[in-house]
Amino acid sequence: MTRKSNRQITLARRPHGLPVAEDFRLVETPVPTPGEGEVLARTIYLTLDPYMRGMMDDTESYDDPVPLGGVMIGSTVSQVIESNHDGFAVGDIVETYAGWQDYVVAPGAALRKIDPALAPISTALGVLGMPGLTAYHGLLKVGEPKPGETVFVSAASGAVGATVGQIARIKGCRVAGCAGSDEKIAYCLDDCGFDACFNYKTCGDVAQAIRQACPDGIDVNFENVGGEISRAAMMQLNLHGRMAVCGTISNYNATDVEQVADNLWWYIVRRIRVQGLLVTDYEDGHAEALKEMAGWIAQGELVYRETVVEGLENAPATFNRLFEGSNFGKLIIQVSDDPTKG
Amino acid sequence: MTRKSNRQITLARRPHGLPVAEDFRLVETPVPTPGEGEVLARTIYLTLDPYMRGMMDDTESYDDPVPLGGVMIGSTVSQVIESNHDGFAVGDIVETYAGWQDYVVAPGAALRKIDPALAPISTALGVLGMPGLTAYHGLLKVGEPKPGETVFVSAASGAVGATVGQIARIKGCRVAGCAGSDEKIAYCLDDCGFDACFNYKTCGDVAQAIRQACPDGIDVNFENVGGEISRAAMMQLNLHGRMAVCGTISNYNATDVEQVADNLWWYIVRRIRVQGLLVTDYEDGHAEALKEMAGWIAQGELVYRETVVEGLENAPATFNRLFEGSNFGKLIIQVSDDPTKG
Repeated sequence: MTRKSNRQITLARRPHGLPVAEDFRLVETPVPTPGEGEVLARTIYLTLDPYMRGMMDDTESYDDPVPLGGVMIGSTVSQVIESNHDGFAVGDIVETYAGWQDYVVAPGAALRKIDPALAPISTALGVLGMPGLTAYHGLLKVGEPKPGETVFVSAASGAVGATVGQIARIKGCRVAGCAGSDEKIAYCLDDCGFDACFNYKTCGDVAQAIRQACPDGIDVNFENVGGEISRAAMMQLNLHGRMAVCGTISNYNATDVEQVADNLWWYIVRRIRVQGLLVTDYEDGHAEALKEMAGWIAQGELVYRETVVEGLENAPATFNRLFEGSNFGKLIIQVSDDPTKG
Repeated sequence: MTRKSNRQITLARRPHGLPVAEDFRLVETPVPTPGEGEVLARTIYLTLDPYMRGMMDDTESYDDPVPLGGVMIGSTVSQVIESNHDGFAVGDIVETYAGWQDYVVAPGAALRKIDPALAPISTALGVLGMPGLTAYHGLLKVGEPKPGETVFVSAASGAVGATVGQIARIKGCRVAGCAGSDEKIAYCLDDCGFDACFNYKTCGDVAQAIRQACPDGIDVNFENVGGEISRAAMMQLNLHGRMAVCGTISNYNATDVEQVADNLWWYIVRRIRVQGLLVTDYEDGHAEALKEMAGWIAQGELVYRETVVEGLENAPATFNRLFEGSNFGKLIIQVSDDPTKG
């Protein structure tokens, strides 16, 4: 089937909340012609992914927004129908970033060849494409699950979530999740091999549902949704638990401006890592650290400052200096004579 | 100087907000007697640290709270005055966790011997004690600064902050910070070698002040204070920036119950690590990931589910299924015929 024109769906205006029909426009343009080193490809499958909502907004994100009037972006599985590139022949199936349109002209570097013998070609947009790779790298490289640990994943039946859960199971973890319908729950439990999965819409108290699904707490929370579920999961993270922030779909259509720093979305935009620390976790390294720091002090590289207040009885009143800004340097109470001082 | 009794400062009641005198009680008890393997030590220096405020509350933290009527906790530099332990002689200077009192009986395992020749013994409570070790491990193992990166530290003139800044400088980083008086700023700049330091009380717009102090953004934020400064610093973290959450002193005396999951304090309690991820950061590993996942699919270990909707023109309306919960599995638009299907 070859069309005489290229239908394109463009972004007509920036959505306010959930997109409506008027935010898009269907336009017809001539089928483009490939230049040197380029191919013309016909779209077979177009993926729709939650991240596209963010690209419709003109706010800072990890990528530029779709310009007004621009073709909506997105990966496709396409077939090469004209080729000026030695690496691709007419008929080849490729994955590319054609966007919401019938045809695209793309350079060879923008194409990934798909082997139809390996799996249905549509999987190049799902389990063997961006969502699957997100699950794989996100779980294994950010979540770092260890055998026997509990992994919790929200949006558990989704393209990312179901893959996260299964990889966690393959890696020997206990796997729990939540989803929004009984059919999805059954899929997670019966087809994907989750150990537990609950319906967040009907479970009542989400925190309690997580506790039941994860009786030993959560070691890795793979976060897809944000909001109440993410807060409840975070509170049940075990000591040294990890949280891989992949998505916050619950607020992609939010219209009230939240403090973005309180929003997990920012963690994705900048791929930041925030980690709590307590010195007692590092006791094995104390001797070496003290040796190195004492050396820096001896060399004059590291200076320090102390405020010494005399009298144990003054400890309570002195303590508040720490919070009032009136203290300077290390605050110490001298309780009795220092025999090392002359 | 030897006292006939052991003065102890106990926690009389749990403070509401900033502690007041009535929250504590000074009691006198007999000087205790060491048993087998124990020593009696006289307190010389007692440290006062912000974390002690948290120990006065009866809420979940990384350690048990001080019981009502119990002696306030804390590290001391003490001198051994009686010893029933082979490893310690009368006169030895030790660091131990004696708390707010004149004397303590402790087993040998609870004592760390201090060498007075190395540095003034009070440093065992500061730069060569818990605060210094916190700075060292927190910066190097959680913050992971690289030469040339920018490290920002709040409470920059404090026992932890000033050490963080200097270690960052020693490691070849650009160092910026903020503190609460001009004298503290001068200390950071002139004595500790910070590249920039501003007074957060007089700077006006904190975000703007951070931008000026860190023109290339922040690679490592060493967080000591929480609140507005932490939010502004987090927003200026560069791509793949790190934030080591050491303390949130600005809310240690807060009396309104905040959502603790929105509170950085929880990161410390559980030492959790939260990290944003984007699949494109892992492109080098895609080929291996796809190979492994295709193998799991072939073995039946990894299943997937797709929802395919026909017609490019239906993409806009179909897109919202992602947010309405009506989609199940990977959502795909079939734009044209799939030549690989019969």
